[in-house]
Amino acid sequence: MILDELETPALVLDASIMEANIARLRARLAGLGPALRPHVKTAKCAEVAKRCLEGQPGGITVSTLAEAEYFAAQGVRDILYAVGIAPNKLEHVRDLRRRGVDVTVVLDNAEQAKFSSEIPCLIEIDCDGHRSGVKPDAPDLVGLARAVQNLRGVMTHAGASYNCRSTKAIEEMAEQERRAVVVAAQRLRKEKLPAPVVSVGSTPTAHFARSLEGVTEVRAGVYVFFDLVMAGISVCRVEDIALSVLATVIGHQADKGWAITDAGWMAMSRDRGTAAQPLDQGYGLVCDADGRPLDGVIVSDANQEHGILSHRSGEAARMPKLPVGTMVRILPNHACATGAQHKAYHVVRGSRRIEARWERIGGW
Amino acid sequence: MILDELETPALVLDASIMEANIARLRARLAGLGPALRPHVKTAKCAEVAKRCLEGQPGGITVSTLAEAEYFAAQGVRDILYAVGIAPNKLEHVRDLRRRGVDVTVVLDNAEQAKFSSEIPCLIEIDCDGHRSGVKPDAPDLVGLARAVQNLRGVMTHAGASYNCRSTKAIEEMAEQERRAVVVAAQRLRKEKLPAPVVSVGSTPTAHFARSLEGVTEVRAGVYVFFDLVMAGISVCRVEDIALSVLATVIGHQADKGWAITDAGWMAMSRDRGTAAQPLDQGYGLVCDADGRPLDGVIVSDANQEHGILSHRSGEAARMPKLPVGTMVRILPNHACATGAQHKAYHVVRGSRRIEARWERIGGW
Repeated sequence: MILDELETPALVLDASIMEANIARLRARLAGLGPALRPHVKTAKCAEVAKRCLEGQPGGITVSTLAEAEYFAAQGVRDILYAVGIAPNKLEHVRDLRRRGVDVTVVLDNAEQAKFSSEIPCLIEIDCDGHRSGVKPDAPDLVGLARAVQNLRGVMTHAGASYNCRSTKAIEEMAEQERRAVVVAAQRLRKEKLPAPVVSVGSTPTAHFARSLEGVTEVRAGVYVFFDLVMAGISVCRVEDIALSVLATVIGHQADKGWAITDAGWMAMSRDRGTAAQPLDQGYGLVCDADGRPLDGVIVSDANQEHGILSHRSGEAARMPKLPVGTMVRILPNHACATGAQHKAYHVVRGSRRIEARWERIGGW
Repeated sequence: MILDELETPALVLDASIMEANIARLRARLAGLGPALRPHVKTAKCAEVAKRCLEGQPGGITVSTLAEAEYFAAQGVRDILYAVGIAPNKLEHVRDLRRRGVDVTVVLDNAEQAKFSSEIPCLIEIDCDGHRSGVKPDAPDLVGLARAVQNLRGVMTHAGASYNCRSTKAIEEMAEQERRAVVVAAQRLRKEKLPAPVVSVGSTPTAHFARSLEGVTEVRAGVYVFFDLVMAGISVCRVEDIALSVLATVIGHQADKGWAITDAGWMAMSRDRGTAAQPLDQGYGLVCDADGRPLDGVIVSDANQEHGILSHRSGEAARMPKLPVGTMVRILPNHACATGAQHKAYHVVRGSRRIEARWERIGGW
């Protein structure tokens, strides 16, 4: 079967590009030391995770207990649930643990420490002020660590790295991320508290860290597929983006320079992550059906099941001819968000031939 | 079972509010004349559609052929697929028709007229310049209609009504929408071309049209649940919003006035539809677990599985105390987008008692 035979919209994954992306981070971390604990929230797919785990210890990071269940059923036995634990998820975590799955949770406050009781925990460290966590120099860090019954160490996520505007800024953010957890771990060890795990992770910092000294594992997710947000901060090139949405031209408004497709925000997601970057890619960058970018054509607007393609200049004359029925492939702003709108990947390798269909999971 | 026993995030539907919303549009259209052809793209749920169809002819509007398949399996026999037809969907439409489902498609150009051959078609009319369609006074409308083998009439959608800033502006948009299709139908009939169907539809215009003379059916979708975008243009009140996302507080950044929950953009969607309205609701308006708004608290930022709650003023002192473990319900910007992130509704009626779980479908 080839892409041309699919009903659109449909999610396309170029496995050659993905494998190169996986190899790139693997080689990078091999040079720096820490193991990789891939974050499966991007792909939510056993076939992808299997490839990420080659040559790695086998532990994964999840963002939902639905992911934990799915990957446990696939045989994964070491799972970090990297969203602060809530009381209504404790029974589920305990149930997974009873079934032999070593689930670790994260927390950043005394209430969570109390109700998590015997479950293994990492303390979340706030390295950049973007979300959760305890500051590495916070006076109450040691008190919190003492309150944790089964402490395994510390973790942080430099989410602010997505907003960096240069590779130098990402390098600095990676060092800030590293230092935050290493300092926190040192404070705990000084008090004879256990900190065997020192975990960092974000795709930008994983690719630009100069040192990961003192770090035991790196979490990264979007590195498998990359996306326009990552290309916009030079973590990858546009040609490294493995994920795209196949769409079909269904009409035009010729005077406006619009081609209209059947891939709206339901297929692309509402993510407008490049809106704040120097090059705004709308709802996605448009390629031909073989994946070659059409010069300057973006999805400039989207309704639920309609996408409007136009030249980024807005000039109707610069819009290429895309007759009704033409298939295009649209590179996403944010692979995690776009992937989540679909149930399966149609897997290709640099051509339009579909070599597999890989299911993905969703929900909670 | 009560809401407090759910793992979060989870989608909650208050059926009492929904039923009042359904009754409101039913009463309104009964006074104006046309039948309702509910757009099932909002709810994607048989239980909801059943309630919308009470007292109506039984036809529905869909945005995907996956919806058409699902509702055909539920016994619906009259389906308008309201996204311009693409060549790769023809076989699927023909297959549905062979199974006794009267699927009508829409089109706005000669290429589509050619490949649609015997399938019943509506010509899409552009009433507001927002997307697809032929202008009602376009010279080529009659030529296009002649090229359609099985013409059933005309349809339009006043998508621009979502951007109206007053009910007067919506009234005017409704009249513009009505006039566009009525004028187009008159032009066709003058040429002895068939136009038995004259179809309009958007939730704002359906609620504020003063006349629907010449219109045979109204399509509307989001009216069943409403959302903050609709409240922001006074089509409904905040208390008319039937849909919410149940979330749990997992931590705080007290100095910033943040409470952090386990409902991020995966649970809320990335839709920021209120960003362009006078009152920006962030990623959603926060209520207590009984659905009562917490004064001025919104989801001010979101990551994949984390939501940041804060007071809309940004003042930490104005943030209410929400201890770890507190459950909140978050009203969405856009019901269609938020619903699509979930697999089922947890149905309540003005209390926390869950009386049913209604599945919904997704994908294409």
